[in-house]
Amino acid sequence: MDVGAKEERDQVWWGHRAWSLLSAVRARAPLVQCITNLVSMDIAANVLLAAGASPAMVHSLREVPDFTPRCDAVYVNVGTLSEDWLPSMRAAAFPGRPWVLDPVAAAASGFRMEACLELLSLCPAVVRGNASEILALASRSAAASSNFKGVDSSHGSVDAIEAAKALALSSSAVAAVSGAVDFITDGKQVVSVSNGVPMMQKITATGCAVTALIAAFVAMEPSDAIVAAACALAIFGLAGEIGMESAKGPASLRMHLIDALYCLDEETVTSRVRISLRP
Amino acid sequence: MDVGAKEERDQVWWGHRAWSLLSAVRARAPLVQCITNLVSMDIAANVLLAAGASPAMVHSLREVPDFTPRCDAVYVNVGTLSEDWLPSMRAAAFPGRPWVLDPVAAAASGFRMEACLELLSLCPAVVRGNASEILALASRSAAASSNFKGVDSSHGSVDAIEAAKALALSSSAVAAVSGAVDFITDGKQVVSVSNGVPMMQKITATGCAVTALIAAFVAMEPSDAIVAAACALAIFGLAGEIGMESAKGPASLRMHLIDALYCLDEETVTSRVRISLRP
Amino acid sequence: MDVGAKEERDQVWWGHRAWSLLSAVRARAPLVQCITNLVSMDIAANVLLAAGASPAMVHSLREVPDFTPRCDAVYVNVGTLSEDWLPSMRAAAFPGRPWVLDPVAAAASGFRMEACLELLSLCPAVVRGNASEILALASRSAAASSNFKGVDSSHGSVDAIEAAKALALSSSAVAAVSGAVDFITDGKQVVSVSNGVPMMQKITATGCAVTALIAAFVAMEPSDAIVAAACALAIFGLAGEIGMESAKGPASLRMHLIDALYCLDEETVTSRVRISLRP
Repeated sequence: MDVGAKEERDQVWWGHRAWSLLSAVRARAPLVQCITNLVSMDIAANVLLAAGASPAMVHSLREVPDFTPRCDAVYVNVGTLSEDWLPSMRAAAFPGRPWVLDPVAAAASGFRMEACLELLSLCPAVVRGNASEILALASRSAAASSNFKGVDSSHGSVDAIEAAKALALSSSAVAAVSGAVDFITDGKQVVSVSNGVPMMQKITATGCAVTALIAAFVAMEPSDAIVAAACALAIFGLAGEIGMESAKGPASLRMHLIDALYCLDEETVTSRVRISLRP
Repeated sequence: MDVGAKEERDQVWWGHRAWSLLSAVRARAPLVQCITNLVSMDIAANVLLAAGASPAMVHSLREVPDFTPRCDAVYVNVGTLSEDWLPSMRAAAFPGRPWVLDPVAAAASGFRMEACLELLSLCPAVVRGNASEILALASRSAAASSNFKGVDSSHGSVDAIEAAKALALSSSAVAAVSGAVDFITDGKQVVSVSNGVPMMQKITATGCAVTALIAAFVAMEPSDAIVAAACALAIFGLAGEIGMESAKGPASLRMHLIDALYCLDEETVTSRVRISLRP
Repeated sequence: MDVGAKEERDQVWWGHRAWSLLSAVRARAPLVQCITNLVSMDIAANVLLAAGASPAMVHSLREVPDFTPRCDAVYVNVGTLSEDWLPSMRAAAFPGRPWVLDPVAAAASGFRMEACLELLSLCPAVVRGNASEILALASRSAAASSNFKGVDSSHGSVDAIEAAKALALSSSAVAAVSGAVDFITDGKQVVSVSNGVPMMQKITATGCAVTALIAAFVAMEPSDAIVAAACALAIFGLAGEIGMESAKGPASLRMHLIDALYCLDEETVTSRVRISLRP
């Protein structure tokens, strides 16, 4: 079989996987507990609802024992970390239920880096960050982030592929690096996703929102987190591409992206997701 | 008088009541203290502003003694309950000032259910929830919520009418159940509201926002909370109907709903609110 | 030189200053730490991103020592003040880094007024509030705010010019009063800004968002905070004017304002900012 035919076959395969997972989310409405930062709550909840999932922002340690076992997945995000929220994050990240970590600005402080490393040791199914975050985590030291720039990335995602592989191998989590091209790896295989538009970085908490979406997808496919993460990233990026067709700036892009996510149909998904296994 | 004529007369009466209350909110800009969940703050504040009220998100216990007495109504919502917020909720719910309770996901945990029951004992003017929340509260036990599904309702509102009546009688609060049709009851009379569109459930915190609006309406009509709650639910649902005419998905519906609420005029309100006394 | 020619020359000067500062924000993407209220996080972050700055909502006291020194400016807002956030606000407001204070509803409680006065003593570069807030701060007593009305202002900005001058002189901060016309003063000079539209007051946290933008502008021009604050207020108001051309209510205005801020070009800025030195 020639290369072009193989690529086309793979493309069809990924398109059907992405559509199948989105359809599962819509049909089964997984309950996703979100212990997330204060900035992202609105957009993360709205993205989950638009995708068909059922978000629940529940962060009190008092509620974790009763509530978390009923959830289909847990989403933990350290964007506005404080000491009083950390115990809930630890408690919600327990084995037997897939959970996903967003290490926002991991290198912002020693406190945050330590928290991220501790959470990483609690076996997330997926850790998703931008290149700077993944590089900082992989090097396990804030000092390594020489060009620290708040929550925005100062590195291209391709610079972080090796770091992501190392992080995946050391943590046993699938590591996903967002960027112009997203890379998702279990330490051996690397899958790339080319959906999305640059203006999405001008909307606050899009990274947080897509990690929440990954949690919903992982709930549908806990045994194959690399596929679930890649499909969620592709679906979200595709919604951004469609939203961009009507957007006049970042605020209208945000609106159109969520509308597009809600309206995605089979033909659009199967023909437009851009996922491939990196050779 | 035949039934059709009575219905028409009632329709005219409710239309004028709804318009009169909305006009009062616009003219008097009631100050509504909101101790609400972290997800809903933006939409609740924007809905109150669009309706003409003056929202104030003030949740510190240190501020309640100075601030709460100056407010026209208080809105309490347990959506992201934590131990440190509960004392403020208790303190703000004091007699002599109407306050409204939104028992989001009351059955999510024993901690939350106990908090809701305690708050219910502090004489809210109105408690508004979805069918699952009202059923859980009425049965006073998380166990009764057999199909617990996060913050979304897994029951139709009509299933919860008897529970709402029981809850109203036991708590002396007006109980409102949101759904495809909303039901509002003081334990004896039941008023139904048929405004709204299904897609409103795909926007996070619309339930929270309408409860905030109920607080503003109750501030205008503290002696008739059943009418105030019904009119607020109808006005919000009507704004959703008008918003739906331009919406392409849940994010644009959210925007158009708030714009429509801001722009509502007398003719639209009096001709389109759908409120009736259930026989 | 006649008065008309001088006005025109000043207009050209301010237009170029405003464009130059916005261009600097876009080029240098200042990192702005925001310790702000829970309602405003989304809009403040999105406004900063649309302007080209890099927002970071970091509020834990544990992170201040590592994180704050890396920032270009700090933005502190007391809108949802609580005791556990106050130490971070104090710590982030340290000398050597410009920081900006938004004393939302300063007169809401004795606790809040005391906190604002203490923060004022920590040398902010700019304090921005509505007329009621500036009047209350200047009189240093909640009692002085005779017509207290939550977070909305019950005074016109012109009523607060003398109070702003007194506040600027006593605190050494530039004081900015927002309103139909904004006034910015260092206690001697008074600059006025006439951009903006009334409907912006119907969007929650626009005041908070513009104070965040002032922080980004002050980061670019720390030695001339009066110019930075005036230009930020003018740019934000201008974005509101352009947004208003497409808006159908406060929710669409919010979206169009942010889009317009992102899209502002040199000709629009230089020809439409309305800043002048008050004689």
